[in-house]
Amino acid sequence: MFSYRVRVRWADTDASGRIHNTAALRYFEEAAGDLFRHLGLSLEAGLAGGLDFPRVHVECDYLLPLGFDDALEIRVFRGRVGESSFALECEGWLLEEGPWGPLLSGARGRPIPSLALRGKLVIVTVDRQKGESTRIPHELRQALEQLSSSSKPS
Amino acid sequence: MFSYRVRVRWADTDASGRIHNTAALRYFEEAAGDLFRHLGLSLEAGLAGGLDFPRVHVECDYLLPLGFDDALEIRVFRGRVGESSFALECEGWLLEEGPWGPLLSGARGRPIPSLALRGKLVIVTVDRQKGESTRIPHELRQALEQLSSSSKPS
Amino acid sequence: MFSYRVRVRWADTDASGRIHNTAALRYFEEAAGDLFRHLGLSLEAGLAGGLDFPRVHVECDYLLPLGFDDALEIRVFRGRVGESSFALECEGWLLEEGPWGPLLSGARGRPIPSLALRGKLVIVTVDRQKGESTRIPHELRQALEQLSSSSKPS
Amino acid sequence: MFSYRVRVRWADTDASGRIHNTAALRYFEEAAGDLFRHLGLSLEAGLAGGLDFPRVHVECDYLLPLGFDDALEIRVFRGRVGESSFALECEGWLLEEGPWGPLLSGARGRPIPSLALRGKLVIVTVDRQKGESTRIPHELRQALEQLSSSSKPS
Repeated sequence: MFSYRVRVRWADTDASGRIHNTAALRYFEEAAGDLFRHLGLSLEAGLAGGLDFPRVHVECDYLLPLGFDDALEIRVFRGRVGESSFALECEGWLLEEGPWGPLLSGARGRPIPSLALRGKLVIVTVDRQKGESTRIPHELRQALEQLSSSSKPS
Repeated sequence: MFSYRVRVRWADTDASGRIHNTAALRYFEEAAGDLFRHLGLSLEAGLAGGLDFPRVHVECDYLLPLGFDDALEIRVFRGRVGESSFALECEGWLLEEGPWGPLLSGARGRPIPSLALRGKLVIVTVDRQKGESTRIPHELRQALEQLSSSSKPS
Repeated sequence: MFSYRVRVRWADTDASGRIHNTAALRYFEEAAGDLFRHLGLSLEAGLAGGLDFPRVHVECDYLLPLGFDDALEIRVFRGRVGESSFALECEGWLLEEGPWGPLLSGARGRPIPSLALRGKLVIVTVDRQKGESTRIPHELRQALEQLSSSSKPS
Repeated sequence: MFSYRVRVRWADTDASGRIHNTAALRYFEEAAGDLFRHLGLSLEAGLAGGLDFPRVHVECDYLLPLGFDDALEIRVFRGRVGESSFALECEGWLLEEGPWGPLLSGARGRPIPSLALRGKLVIVTVDRQKGESTRIPHELRQALEQLSSSSKPS
């Protein structure tokens, strides 16, 4: 399990007063980037080596309303790892209410901490020259093995 | 089935040279907004009437690489409709390659037209005052019934 | 003068109920991209030819509150053209109020049409290999000359 | 002077391989939000009190190419303070190169630290009910006085 902290940014809200529905996916991506940086890896670095790592599937459940300045902990787990693709399972835990967010978002009575977001990214290794999927590089596979597998939050 | 046209915008690309993984969800949202405007409705208008329509689930499969200026047709279908929630199933069809996008994105040999995106939005009707889900308004339910149900693309 | 139509998208609003302060710059960029496509050019195509066209200055005045679904006409004019850089001056005219936007944005009593946005993009031609600015390509310079110079809206 | 740290996020890049031209304005906004939180204030909280703080002018100079994962320090200074409006002057200093960003962005030979971004936000206090500008609240004016005025970077 890997942990990343983020606050809901103003630019990530919309006129409902709450978080926009694409924001969680950006937080998951930031957490994944931070994870790989800590492992001395970078999916982006693969680009220089001729590899691409497109996200071929993204999804998120919004379990609680979230608003501006709410403090979140994003947790990243290893999902299914195949020959050329792998999944990262992500959770977003509400750790602290933004001081003003509830006034705007109407969110009330949310337990602290509580599971607010649950999602998944599926990433494929692609040989950029050939335009075809290819085996996950050894280093990346090893790094994924170090990551704890997804919890089953109840 | 409802149809909406959009080109991949420069701001929706990332340093991979292709579309960012949150962009399709914005296109689905734009298509849904356009759909409701044509039906004389607006989820956003519900806010004024005390209703919220949060997206509680979003997902997308990226079936083909997409790049700057690729022209897409977003098709919206009715998914499952329950008491207080409903799903919109969305497809994104590549209609025309951007003149320059393939140089940047590396995308080649994509048939025209072809199914590039497939996703879903699940939307709940919420009573903003009570903070609880509530029945889908009658008008909205009628509008959803006019929408053809999701195709089964093979 | 070149004209481009856009509606304020839901994803471009924030929890104030109005347009986010970066959205106009995206609209200007979309308008500029559309302009260059019509001229058979693409700043992005330059990337393939070893040229970069980074925006080295962006600015925008927000003259009127704007909200979801407000319909805008973006007008693009030629600003100052130098050896290696050029400016595009942009205006955003409110053509039609979104049917629901005013409920969320609080915007009222805005004349139609009215000038809502005024801004500028300054773009430099860069030789990507050398990392240095270089002369504006001939074709692009000709295209800029076809564009009417900036009006002086009073 | 107030300082805020941020890394260039993947979602903030575009197909040029570098930062998108709206990203700096989001960083300035985040820095300003962080500043006000530390002062026990929130522009957003004003919404609940009937005040709006729209950004009526935003601008940014991009002085250096920036790419994914570059580490920045955003510095916020007090600009001109009037009756109902005030300016925040912002700088972005490159503190550390992202390990992989230069491969994608082509940025090379940038001194560390160096001034990469310089910009400004102009914010107006608006009475939301009347839709008119109004005096800056006393608490906010005091907070602004605590902020050092803009440096003159040469």
